[in-house]
Amino acid sequence: MSLIVVGSVAYDGVETPHGRVDRMLGGAATYISLAASYFTKVRIVAVVGDDFAQQDTDLLTSRGIDLEGLERVPGKTFFWAGKYSPDMNDRETLVTDLNVFANFDPKLPDSYKSEPYLLLGNIQPALQAAVRSQMKHLKLAGGDTMNYWIADFREELIKTIKDWDFLLINDGEARMLSGESNLKKAAQKIMDMGPHTLVIKRGEYGAILFRRDSYFIVPGYLLETVFDPTGAGDCFAGGFTGYLAQQGFDLHGDHISRGDLSRAVIYGSVMGSFCCERFGVERFRTLTKEEINARFEEFRKFTHF
Amino acid sequence: MSLIVVGSVAYDGVETPHGRVDRMLGGAATYISLAASYFTKVRIVAVVGDDFAQQDTDLLTSRGIDLEGLERVPGKTFFWAGKYSPDMNDRETLVTDLNVFANFDPKLPDSYKSEPYLLLGNIQPALQAAVRSQMKHLKLAGGDTMNYWIADFREELIKTIKDWDFLLINDGEARMLSGESNLKKAAQKIMDMGPHTLVIKRGEYGAILFRRDSYFIVPGYLLETVFDPTGAGDCFAGGFTGYLAQQGFDLHGDHISRGDLSRAVIYGSVMGSFCCERFGVERFRTLTKEEINARFEEFRKFTHF
Repeated sequence: MSLIVVGSVAYDGVETPHGRVDRMLGGAATYISLAASYFTKVRIVAVVGDDFAQQDTDLLTSRGIDLEGLERVPGKTFFWAGKYSPDMNDRETLVTDLNVFANFDPKLPDSYKSEPYLLLGNIQPALQAAVRSQMKHLKLAGGDTMNYWIADFREELIKTIKDWDFLLINDGEARMLSGESNLKKAAQKIMDMGPHTLVIKRGEYGAILFRRDSYFIVPGYLLETVFDPTGAGDCFAGGFTGYLAQQGFDLHGDHISRGDLSRAVIYGSVMGSFCCERFGVERFRTLTKEEINARFEEFRKFTHF
Repeated sequence: MSLIVVGSVAYDGVETPHGRVDRMLGGAATYISLAASYFTKVRIVAVVGDDFAQQDTDLLTSRGIDLEGLERVPGKTFFWAGKYSPDMNDRETLVTDLNVFANFDPKLPDSYKSEPYLLLGNIQPALQAAVRSQMKHLKLAGGDTMNYWIADFREELIKTIKDWDFLLINDGEARMLSGESNLKKAAQKIMDMGPHTLVIKRGEYGAILFRRDSYFIVPGYLLETVFDPTGAGDCFAGGFTGYLAQQGFDLHGDHISRGDLSRAVIYGSVMGSFCCERFGVERFRTLTKEEINARFEEFRKFTHF
C-alpha cells in the first residue's frame, strides 16, 4: 500500500531574508516524499545526474523512501536558484538549469505499477498522464501543476487532470485555470474538469478543500520565523496524500468523508509549516511523528470555537 | 447595559466592479452600530450636517439605535468617495470632504456616561481618549485606528490605547504600529502597549485574536460575490463588541474565556461577511437574527475537523 511520487529531485540555491544557501537538496518529489514518509511507504519516480550525492540518497532512504524509480543518468542534476522578497510572499527565479531533467521520461518499475496511491508533482502534463495510465489498481490519484502549464499547455493539462481524483494548486493558479476570480466559482469550474476534490493552497493564509457539496477552510499556521518557504506547498501535498494513503482511503470510490479529508488538509498544513522552519529539507532531519501530532492538536486548539 | 459607539456618520460614494452608488449612508459609527444592534442596545456619538436625511435617521432608529448623542450642526455631512480595484483588495480615495466632521468634538450625553461598553471608531486618538475618560463604569473599552494616526500621531495614539482592553486593526496597521512584520511578534509588542486583547483583521482571509497566552484564527467567509467591502471591518468590530456586550462580559476584569472571545470573533466575521453582500448598509435593511445564527453555524461547519 505505497504512495508513488513522481516529480523533480533537484539541487536548489535559495536566498531569503534569513540567509542564503548556495546548493542544497530540493525538488518537488523530494519535499513530497519526505513529508509523506511520516504517514506511509513512499516510492519515488525521478531522475538525477551523476553528481547526486550519497548523503542525499541517504537522507531519502533513512525515511524509508524506495529509490528503485530514481533514475541516474550521466550529466548534472536539475538546479534551481531563487531569491525571496522581504515578506517572502514573492520570489524571483535566478537560475533554472534543467540539466538531466530536460529529458525526464518517468519510468515506472514494474513493482510500482500495482500500487494504489499516486501523487504527480508539477511536471509536464503529458508526462503526468503517461504515468497515470500505467497504474492499474489506483484507489487515489492526483497532483499539482503550475502557471506555465496552465498558460501554454492548457489542452494537454485539461485532458490530464480529467482522470484525477484531486488537484492541489494555489489560489492564483485556480483563478488562471478557471478564468474566475471568485474562488468558490473557480472551484466549481475546476471540478467540472474532472477532479472531484480540489485543494487550493493560499500560502501563509492556509488552504481550502472543495468538494461538490461542501468545503473546508483552514487558516495557515502562525510561525514566529519563516526561514525558507521553498517546498512548503509540496510538503502540504505530501502530508495530505500521505495521510489519506495511511488511512487506506479510496477517494476514487468516494469512500471518504469530509471529516477525513479535513484531517488530511490539516496534516498537509502541519507538514508545510514545519518545512518553513529551516532552510530546504533541513527540518526533516530531526522532525518526529510526535511533533507532527502535537502540531495537529495545536491546529485544533487555535481554530476551535 | 448599552454599547456606546463613537465615530463617523457619513455619506459615501462607492464604485466597485459590481456597480456604483454616488451617495449613500456610510461612516464607521453607522456600520458598527448597525452590526452591533443585532446583539445589544447601541447608543451613538457622532456629528452630521443639516443635510442628513430623515430616511437615514429612520434606518438607525428602526434598529433601536439611540441617537441622543448624534449631534446635528449647520453644514454638510462628512462625504467620502472611493473606487475599488478589480479584485477589491485595494481602493483609491477619490473624495474626502470632512465638512462638519472636521470639528467633531464628541459630546457624551449624561445618560451615556455610566454605560459599561465602549467602542471607539477610527477618529483622532485624542478624541478617543477624551471620550474614554468621561466613562466612569466601563467593563470593556476598545477601538480601531488607522495608518494615518499610526504614522503621524504615534505618541498620542500609544497614550490612548494604553487604557483600552482591546484593539481591532488590520494586518498592515499591526505591522506598522509594532514595527514587526511577523504577526505573532507584532501582536506581543502591541499587547505590551496596553490592550490585553488584540484582533487583527485580514480582510478576505479572516481574523486572528491574540491574548498573552493564546490565539484564535478564523478564515474569512467565502462569498460568491463581494458587492462592496466598504464597512466590513467596522461591521466586524460591531459584531465582535456587540456579542461581548450582549453576554455581559467584563473583559476589563478578565472574566472571559478564550471560547467566549472566539465566538465574538465569529460573530464579527459573520457581520463583516453580510456587509459585503450589498452596497453600503443595504444588507441591514433585511438581515435577520436567524440569518446571523445560521451563518455562525456555517462557520462551525466549514472550520471543524
